[in-house]
Amino acid sequence: MSNNLDDLRVSLDNIDNAVVYLMAERFRLTHKVGVYKRDNGLPPVDEKREEAQFARIRQLAEQSGLNSEFAEKLLRLIIDEVVKEHTSLQAR
Amino acid sequence: MSNNLDDLRVSLDNIDNAVVYLMAERFRLTHKVGVYKRDNGLPPVDEKREEAQFARIRQLAEQSGLNSEFAEKLLRLIIDEVVKEHTSLQAR
Repeated sequence: MSNNLDDLRVSLDNIDNAVVYLMAERFRLTHKVGVYKRDNGLPPVDEKREEAQFARIRQLAEQSGLNSEFAEKLLRLIIDEVVKEHTSLQAR
Repeated sequence: MSNNLDDLRVSLDNIDNAVVYLMAERFRLTHKVGVYKRDNGLPPVDEKREEAQFARIRQLAEQSGLNSEFAEKLLRLIIDEVVKEHTSLQAR
């Protein structure tokens, strides 16, 4: 039965590794968004875009069986990091 | 050039959707871990396992170019949610 636990943990680690690579790619893209915003005088935060992102994530969380409160916390963490990076890009 | 921003946002949404599905699957697995822990009298928190997870995530973040502080925050958010669920499973 301990094999059962070890087996589940291998799958969890695989998922986490996939998420790290997706996040690395995500921040490569948001860096480009940050450069575009800076070069075009757009503010780091876009409230309308954020609202749409949260609405989509909530819906997708429900569809997939993920706790939607957790999904929102996750998106908040990501967006806060992006805004921090975009703000620092503009300050340069 | 606005197409450029829209185009990046489509990719960001695709990544976020993938992450939601991965997280949904991750919590399906940790539910099984929680049941196993409850049935075998194991505590919700396993500090040694956590340390190994953080060490691995830090290393993978560096490899992939992801900010490792962000990667740690992300893993903390996930583990906190899992511990909350495992604690509530044991309280039933």
